[in-house]
Parts: sequence; C-alpha cells; structure tokens
Amino acid sequence: MNLILLFPEDYIEPGRVVLSGRRHQHMLSVHRAQPGDLLQVGDLNGKLGHATVIALSATSVELQVHCPVAPPQPVPITLVLALPRPKVLKRTLQSITTLGIKKIILINAWRVEKSYWGSPALQPAAIHEQLLLGLEQARDTVLPEVLLRPRFKPFVEDELAPLIRSQRALVAHPEAQTPCPRQLGGPIILVVGPEGGFIPYEVDMLSAVGCQAIEIGPRILRVETAVTRLVSLLV
Amino acid sequence: MNLILLFPEDYIEPGRVVLSGRRHQHMLSVHRAQPGDLLQVGDLNGKLGHATVIALSATSVELQVHCPVAPPQPVPITLVLALPRPKVLKRTLQSITTLGIKKIILINAWRVEKSYWGSPALQPAAIHEQLLLGLEQARDTVLPEVLLRPRFKPFVEDELAPLIRSQRALVAHPEAQTPCPRQLGGPIILVVGPEGGFIPYEVDMLSAVGCQAIEIGPRILRVETAVTRLVSLLV
Repeated sequence: MNLILLFPEDYIEPGRVVLSGRRHQHMLSVHRAQPGDLLQVGDLNGKLGHATVIALSATSVELQVHCPVAPPQPVPITLVLALPRPKVLKRTLQSITTLGIKKIILINAWRVEKSYWGSPALQPAAIHEQLLLGLEQARDTVLPEVLLRPRFKPFVEDELAPLIRSQRALVAHPEAQTPCPRQLGGPIILVVGPEGGFIPYEVDMLSAVGCQAIEIGPRILRVETAVTRLVSLLV
Repeated sequence: MNLILLFPEDYIEPGRVVLSGRRHQHMLSVHRAQPGDLLQVGDLNGKLGHATVIALSATSVELQVHCPVAPPQPVPITLVLALPRPKVLKRTLQSITTLGIKKIILINAWRVEKSYWGSPALQPAAIHEQLLLGLEQARDTVLPEVLLRPRFKPFVEDELAPLIRSQRALVAHPEAQTPCPRQLGGPIILVVGPEGGFIPYEVDMLSAVGCQAIEIGPRILRVETAVTRLVSLLV
C-alpha cells in the first residue's frame, strides 16, 4: 500500500476523513503512524496528495487531507484479454492496474475453460478489490473499467470491429511474423490470448476485423509478464 | 509446462529417455499423451526439439528424442536485485527466467529484512526448482546463474565497481530524473531495489561506482512488473 485511497464516505467534513478497518490497521502496523505524521493519500477517481494524522485510536484514525496533484496519465491502451484462470486473474488485474491501463475487456476463447466464467473472482466486488490493490500499489487513483464478454464471436464482430475503425488494434500471437512495434503511442487496442494461445480460427477472425498479429520474442511468457512487456514496448 | 526439460540422467541410450514423476504426470494429465504423439522437449543447457512417445505406463514414459534447434538468445542483462521476500522471490525468479536473463545477483539492502536471508526459498534446490519452472514456461533450456551477496557495501565496491568498467550500469530509482533508455542493447548491469526502494545512501554508493539512476514512469510497480518493464524497454 504505497497510497491510502480515500472514498467519499470516509469524509466527515471537507478535508477531514476517519478511517477504520484495513487502512487503519495498515497505518498502525506498517507505517507505525503517530499523530502529526504525513501519509500519501488520494481520492478515488480524484487527486493525489498527503494527509496529516490528527488522532489515532485502536479502532480508527482521523486525517486532515490535502490533495492538489493530478493522478498519473492513463496508458492509452484498451486491453482485451482472454479470461485467465481465477488465481491468475486476481494477480493479473492488479498488475494491469499498476501499469495504468484504464479499460480491460475479459473475453472468452476456445482455450478458456467454461468454469472460469462462474468463478467468484469475477464477481464485481472481487474485481473491485483487485483493482484497488493495484491502485494502492501504483499510487494511482483512477479505477479501470472492467467489462466481461463471455461470447467471442459476437464480441469480435459487434464490438471490436467498430472500435478498430478509429484506432489501431494488435493481437499478440507467438507465431506472428511481425515484431511488436515500439513507442506507437495510442490509442491502441491490445488483444492477448489465453495460456496456450488463441486457436487459428480465432486469430483469423481477429485479423479479419483488422487486428494485426505481432510477436514479442522467442520465449513464451505468462499472461502477466506478456501484458507488461507489450505495454512497455508499445507506449 | 510448454517444454519438457531433459536431464543427462534421463537418457538410457543416445536419443532415448525414460521419464517418471512430475513430467510423466504432466504428459498424462495435461497433454493426455498417447504412443506416437510428438512433444516439445529440450536438453537442459542444450538444444530444443521434439520427442515421440514410444511407450507409456502408469509410472513412466519412454521417448525418442530429436533436438537440433539452438535455444533462444540470452538477454544481455545482468540483474542485480535486492532480495525480495520469499514468496515474491519464487515468482520473481520464474519470471526473470522467462525473460531470458542468465545472470541474477541477489543482494542485501537496508529495506531487505534480515530474516529473508534465512528463508528455505534461498536453498540451492529451491532456487533451481523455480529456474526450471521458468525455463519450462519460456521454452528455453539455459539455466540462469544465481549468486547471493548478503553484504551490500563489499558487493558494490569489490564486485560491481570492476564490472562497471566494461559495461553500462543502471539503477532503477523512482526519484531519478532520467527516463530509462530504450533499446540500449547490451551488455547491461541492471540494479533493482527492494519494495520501498533503496535508501539515499545506497543510491549514492551505486552512483559513486558508476550506476546511472533512471526511472520507469510515475507508477510504483511490484518488483516482477518493474523488472519486466525494464528489460522490455532496454533490449
């Protein structure tokens, strides 16, 4: 937790919050906060700044808040990601959030197991939790949007195809001949397949609507590592 | 396991191996291998190729092996990494290995907890296991070398300083003014601090021996994500 995120309901008056629970515990056990200490805070979907510890008890902490600084610029990439298995999804949502991506579309693919779509990790509250952990890690405040698209073909034809008319789209594919372009800027739609990759039918369908297949080197990376590498190359 | 790694002791005669244990189980449960099937294999520290399933039982599998292909080129980066906490170390060793880094030096730093140096995750067999998992994921065969340097100052003065005379060295530091250079090629020594970063004294000492401090953006990344981003930018 490199940043304490503040929510509208934390405010007891303008510039003054009272926190309990996880953030309070973290301030006690990790920051070992004392009255007068300065901590880094940010308003969810708002600005960054610092807070002074006013009062501290075993159950809550009161802070005086001053948030004048804009959050870091978003990364201009929409990530379209084949739904990973639940354990990987959690970690991946966090790491995608730390990278600064603000739109994530989780899609189905042939090699995505059907059971993944029923996982508790896909509940809105579970997704929200991972995104908050990513923001706290990264010192960012702007929640990414996460959309679920459990049907591949309608997604590609009805949603992706119209989007591609106005922005460049790439699909990471180990067998592609074109290396991933560098410092392309944005906006970019980046499509990343499941473990084991998209099947040829899926790559063909993505290509047909205008996704360019690109590769990122001879080694096969886990999804988290692949996404980080792609984002680092592209922007 | 995108590659089945073969060890010298697996060979019963030239071109013929018998495997049991984890690899055999994986072939049964994930590949659902049958006699005649072709699998991707590689000789540890050797070449890549394929193997044909000759015979399969409940306890072992016999393969006919043909490995004519050189493994992927190593990434020309020596990674000097402040020892992460044990759980993070395991994952990080795997992901560093998938990136193609072949020399990893784990060092001490002010913000590395002393107890980490006593962790079972630092035993040679435990490190070896994570490196193998990374190679299997990446489809690479060449084991990285991992060195432990539990004393910061002697490492920097006696080992790092002489190395820097012949190659460029960078230290990732969130407060640096210089952005990470791109496509620098190699060889490069890359120094990455602990969670919370190096303290100013450590950054000063690294700078004094010739490490250039560089930053990788406004967000604070976890060590795995930071290393992946740095490698992707640099080479």
